[in-house]
Amino acid sequence: MAKTKRLLTLLIRLIALGATLAASIIMATSRETGSFFSVSYEAKYTDTPAFKYFVIANGVVSVYGFLVLFLPSESMLWRLVVALDAVFTMLLTSGISAALAIAYVGKKGNSQAGWLPICGQVPKYCDKVTGALASGFVGVITYNMLLLYSIHTLFNPLVHKA
Amino acid sequence: MAKTKRLLTLLIRLIALGATLAASIIMATSRETGSFFSVSYEAKYTDTPAFKYFVIANGVVSVYGFLVLFLPSESMLWRLVVALDAVFTMLLTSGISAALAIAYVGKKGNSQAGWLPICGQVPKYCDKVTGALASGFVGVITYNMLLLYSIHTLFNPLVHKA
Repeated sequence: MAKTKRLLTLLIRLIALGATLAASIIMATSRETGSFFSVSYEAKYTDTPAFKYFVIANGVVSVYGFLVLFLPSESMLWRLVVALDAVFTMLLTSGISAALAIAYVGKKGNSQAGWLPICGQVPKYCDKVTGALASGFVGVITYNMLLLYSIHTLFNPLVHKA
Repeated sequence: MAKTKRLLTLLIRLIALGATLAASIIMATSRETGSFFSVSYEAKYTDTPAFKYFVIANGVVSVYGFLVLFLPSESMLWRLVVALDAVFTMLLTSGISAALAIAYVGKKGNSQAGWLPICGQVPKYCDKVTGALASGFVGVITYNMLLLYSIHTLFNPLVHKA
């Protein structure tokens, strides 16, 4: 029983690692040269602080997720991992929220502020950003599930013998 | 000792409630009529989906924070409160991240995307949004502290007798 749970948690952590790593890489490699009022320019993630933050957040959480995989199951550090999960889940949530807010303006624009949508000029860039956000979303959901599950098991000390 | 901790937690929850409530109200009442290329328009929070989300997130968490104040200290529901704290802290974190990302564009603009800063046209609106974000930041920090403290106490069942 405890072994099945451990394997399940490991599987979820692997999915989360894959998702955050993919989100970080897809966003970091998204670039397209478009023209805007006949001025040629290259759209890339470093133009937007929110996208940079997204790449950094997902990169940092990927490193953390990778290291946790090698933690022996008897280690006392697992208790610290719940608190670390909470902190890194916050970081991921924050990163995707900021990136989503900016991506929404890029897609729809904001007529009151006079900000025009840019997806018409650089459609492939927009598609890649959308892909990165979707992957990041999977990462956020899995980390939130892990966190709530950890909090749940902590309530019952008999269950928490993994 | 347990009583001091209970009072301290109550105090922190009151601060968090005040901060989220203030953030929600300041953002919701922020509006200013400015002119943009001689076209008069009114800047208000409903123009920006991220600011609407910020108001809703802070409003919802305020209601939750208010209700929790009336939970009797012997209640078994306190165990559920840790999980609810985690969920609502995520909501707050997400709300302020999205609002900050947009507010940054409003303040600095984004030259690559051709989005101009709007704070020059509506300085008072910008000041109010900044105030709301500062207040929201206090709320996010206090809720994160509460969550990490709850996770910390859960590790030691002897401490968790509040």
